[in-house]
Amino acid sequence: MVRTGQPAWEGNLLTRVVTVGDVAVGGPDPVVIAGPCAVESRAQTLELAHAVKAAGATMLRGGAFKPRTSPYDFQGLGRAGLEILAEARAATGLPVVTEVLDPRDVAMVAELADVFQIGARNMQNYPLLREVGRAGKPVLLKRHWAATLLEWLCAAEYVAVEGNLDVILCERGIRTFTHTDYNRNTLDLNVVPAVREMSFLPVVVDPSHATGVASLVPPVCFASVAAGAHGLLVEVLGERTRPEDALSDGHQSIRPSVLADVIARLRTFTPGAVAGTLA
Amino acid sequence: MVRTGQPAWEGNLLTRVVTVGDVAVGGPDPVVIAGPCAVESRAQTLELAHAVKAAGATMLRGGAFKPRTSPYDFQGLGRAGLEILAEARAATGLPVVTEVLDPRDVAMVAELADVFQIGARNMQNYPLLREVGRAGKPVLLKRHWAATLLEWLCAAEYVAVEGNLDVILCERGIRTFTHTDYNRNTLDLNVVPAVREMSFLPVVVDPSHATGVASLVPPVCFASVAAGAHGLLVEVLGERTRPEDALSDGHQSIRPSVLADVIARLRTFTPGAVAGTLA
Amino acid sequence: MVRTGQPAWEGNLLTRVVTVGDVAVGGPDPVVIAGPCAVESRAQTLELAHAVKAAGATMLRGGAFKPRTSPYDFQGLGRAGLEILAEARAATGLPVVTEVLDPRDVAMVAELADVFQIGARNMQNYPLLREVGRAGKPVLLKRHWAATLLEWLCAAEYVAVEGNLDVILCERGIRTFTHTDYNRNTLDLNVVPAVREMSFLPVVVDPSHATGVASLVPPVCFASVAAGAHGLLVEVLGERTRPEDALSDGHQSIRPSVLADVIARLRTFTPGAVAGTLA
Amino acid sequence: MVRTGQPAWEGNLLTRVVTVGDVAVGGPDPVVIAGPCAVESRAQTLELAHAVKAAGATMLRGGAFKPRTSPYDFQGLGRAGLEILAEARAATGLPVVTEVLDPRDVAMVAELADVFQIGARNMQNYPLLREVGRAGKPVLLKRHWAATLLEWLCAAEYVAVEGNLDVILCERGIRTFTHTDYNRNTLDLNVVPAVREMSFLPVVVDPSHATGVASLVPPVCFASVAAGAHGLLVEVLGERTRPEDALSDGHQSIRPSVLADVIARLRTFTPGAVAGTLA
Repeated sequence: MVRTGQPAWEGNLLTRVVTVGDVAVGGPDPVVIAGPCAVESRAQTLELAHAVKAAGATMLRGGAFKPRTSPYDFQGLGRAGLEILAEARAATGLPVVTEVLDPRDVAMVAELADVFQIGARNMQNYPLLREVGRAGKPVLLKRHWAATLLEWLCAAEYVAVEGNLDVILCERGIRTFTHTDYNRNTLDLNVVPAVREMSFLPVVVDPSHATGVASLVPPVCFASVAAGAHGLLVEVLGERTRPEDALSDGHQSIRPSVLADVIARLRTFTPGAVAGTLA
Repeated sequence: MVRTGQPAWEGNLLTRVVTVGDVAVGGPDPVVIAGPCAVESRAQTLELAHAVKAAGATMLRGGAFKPRTSPYDFQGLGRAGLEILAEARAATGLPVVTEVLDPRDVAMVAELADVFQIGARNMQNYPLLREVGRAGKPVLLKRHWAATLLEWLCAAEYVAVEGNLDVILCERGIRTFTHTDYNRNTLDLNVVPAVREMSFLPVVVDPSHATGVASLVPPVCFASVAAGAHGLLVEVLGERTRPEDALSDGHQSIRPSVLADVIARLRTFTPGAVAGTLA
Repeated sequence: MVRTGQPAWEGNLLTRVVTVGDVAVGGPDPVVIAGPCAVESRAQTLELAHAVKAAGATMLRGGAFKPRTSPYDFQGLGRAGLEILAEARAATGLPVVTEVLDPRDVAMVAELADVFQIGARNMQNYPLLREVGRAGKPVLLKRHWAATLLEWLCAAEYVAVEGNLDVILCERGIRTFTHTDYNRNTLDLNVVPAVREMSFLPVVVDPSHATGVASLVPPVCFASVAAGAHGLLVEVLGERTRPEDALSDGHQSIRPSVLADVIARLRTFTPGAVAGTLA
Repeated sequence: MVRTGQPAWEGNLLTRVVTVGDVAVGGPDPVVIAGPCAVESRAQTLELAHAVKAAGATMLRGGAFKPRTSPYDFQGLGRAGLEILAEARAATGLPVVTEVLDPRDVAMVAELADVFQIGARNMQNYPLLREVGRAGKPVLLKRHWAATLLEWLCAAEYVAVEGNLDVILCERGIRTFTHTDYNRNTLDLNVVPAVREMSFLPVVVDPSHATGVASLVPPVCFASVAAGAHGLLVEVLGERTRPEDALSDGHQSIRPSVLADVIARLRTFTPGAVAGTLA
């Protein structure tokens, strides 16, 4: 993977490859992590795990602990949700990415999941970052919607100082004056090549939060990979579930059939045709 | 160009094709408009016009009237600059896109150029919009860096009410808290598919202003086309000119050799592989 | 007006006093410029002119040329509106501030009004700035909702280079992620003392646009003067007009009775008790 | 404190008074909470505690646990810092406000301090909010620099659902495109009257973070109280300490002598002259 002869704008650092089971994040092939926003039930999660695997995803996402704006909204199934995710992993072979909110839950999550997700709200929750840094499993670190690049990289450093360099950065949109216009957040596409210039960590994009609108998710998937993202983190809804019936984020989730179409199209990107997908 | 069988997220409107000479903006092939930020001299402009043509661009950009933050900065060559652009068009066959700032200059610009550019600062300069609306030539309408989608589309409507529907929308980045961090502006990639859902007008991206940093321009070019943009408006610098020697925007301009590389890679995007490039 | 013994944070520059008839903008007493958003009719304008005078305002505002987001919205009465304003001035003695949009209208506006208002959308309309710079009357220059301080001061410089130093700066809110939340714009209060540190020009605040919500206008009036603003530019609605019946900005306009209450309270600010009101 | 005869724009809710020792937050008199950004040493903290008391402040602030962007910056003295604060309280009688970052530290902080401060970064750290909600002491809840009003009020609700209604809201500036221009953050003054319309909780302003620049702090103090804020949270630096020698936030801290001047001027605001200070 020596990057000889590459254009300067393809990033000036070798990317660290973070390995999760058989999956390499940071290598030439973009990784697709997909699944429901929240683990709502065993049936929903197993169905979606099989569906995203069939669509071509290589990791499963799903929230057992949900940070919600209101304390009266669904807060996740907690440990029961983690156990459902572990069962879905056993059934599909897909490694599991799931969020942890509380430093006191880190050991429990480490026992049942493969990658810790740190949500945008907790990007600067330093006790939590240190705790996952000590837990010996990879960390997917979402950027806060108002974090500078330095703040984001320094948050990764809180994990790293505990001895864990397996951090995957995840851009999920920033909050701008366009909030509540045609999208919920503004995808910050520029930050993807900026990260590749300034950091050795792999960077993925969450098009679901970076748009907040299901119809915008596919074009943003293509754009993110074209700009050099190492992967995607996509929220998926059951093929026939109504968006308003999902317990969270229904309107920004795509169907498994759309995910399959997106992944198939991504595979036709000629290797080397786009920034960041090196021969 | 009937869009049968297309995914819903590819836009729900047929795009109007704006024709400029032989060039169709809004059709299946992305258009590349390239050239210097400002017309500085006859030699510089002719050299760059030939260089961008050789690189594969199909229209020439260049500013004769320059809106500058400070009144003490270079304000453009005015009519002499327009005449240089007309000569470059004669020499290369490339149609010319150039900015007009003053409603009293519209007739002069119409005489010498092919497409009026309305800059971001003038997006809501209504007398100017009405005047170019009456002048019978296509208009490239940049979005202001703090305009909502509605404000942008309504600005196009000021041109349209005068009887001119040949408006090309141009996203050039919005101003966010990342200003002065790793970029000057934040490319609003989401707005590209949003425009395609809500308007029949073609939409192009200016990656030079949308980043403000030359090294970020190529990945943003790939991403924009992948997301469905109908073209690109790119600032180019002489192959051996130092960025600090350009009279404006040197640090966000790419070299002709980089432009050639970008255009060659764009051609390898398998038709249909990306949003918006329909067979 | 020698500022001896003043705290360093009260600004390090003497403020230029811009004189309009009997009114001094930039001196120790905050100036209140009030009136309707748009001149809708002779009756409405004369009634409001008398009402704001009775409330204690010392200048009259009102738009004859209205820059509207949509070309299908009310665009103002034009010259007829200017003549109504001139009649209101004759009837009340209040000098008139009114917007000019088109460099070709500057002579006409100069003939009938006392202060040119340059709206936020036109802050960087350089031909217009130069034209009012040559017209020999004071200019009230609104800050664009996404302009840096440097861009705003440089816009004033476009007026100044034509020989006119009588520029009154006007902060009217910036556009942030709070757009469409509890306000339309975010008052940038910090910029008021920042202007006083960096410029000799007087600075006023437009609380109507800086909030977009009538109930927030009075507290913002108090805050602006307390922070050192030299005056206020306030939109006023007839005492019994329904906000939805105003042709523009009804929901951010206050009643004359509220204006009177605000001005009365402002007068009780002990001289010297607040930043910028010097003994 | 029945608000009869008050203008509608003074807020439509009675404010809950949060009592801390002898200090009432939410009553007619604005409260000034002042002290160092970080507890650096016993000597520094005791000196500043006496100085802010002499200046007229009625509560002491100071950080023992410091959330810092970089893990390599000073992280606070921890428990030793809390003990110094407790000593400063004993010496001056001023109640102590101090930040807690980790739900596992809540009991320790409760033992030694009077008010929990939740920092902007932790506004949506829900396990922490619930933990302080159970601890039986008032909570000062800073708004995140990119939080909507709803998100902020819902964060308070996470404290309230645990049975603790003694929440003091604290606006500390939002992050906008002006970041790194003339200030670090944009004070959101509009949110102060908006909170008073929509919530019964008292609201204070932190002018130090809301500007990031010492010279802007006094005008922002006046403006905040004029707009109806129930108090101020101000960072103070030793009278002769160089800003660059403070371990954090030196450039936004004011001197005790400036604080004394500010508090003296605030007292001359005629009761009832400004929004929110009701007779």
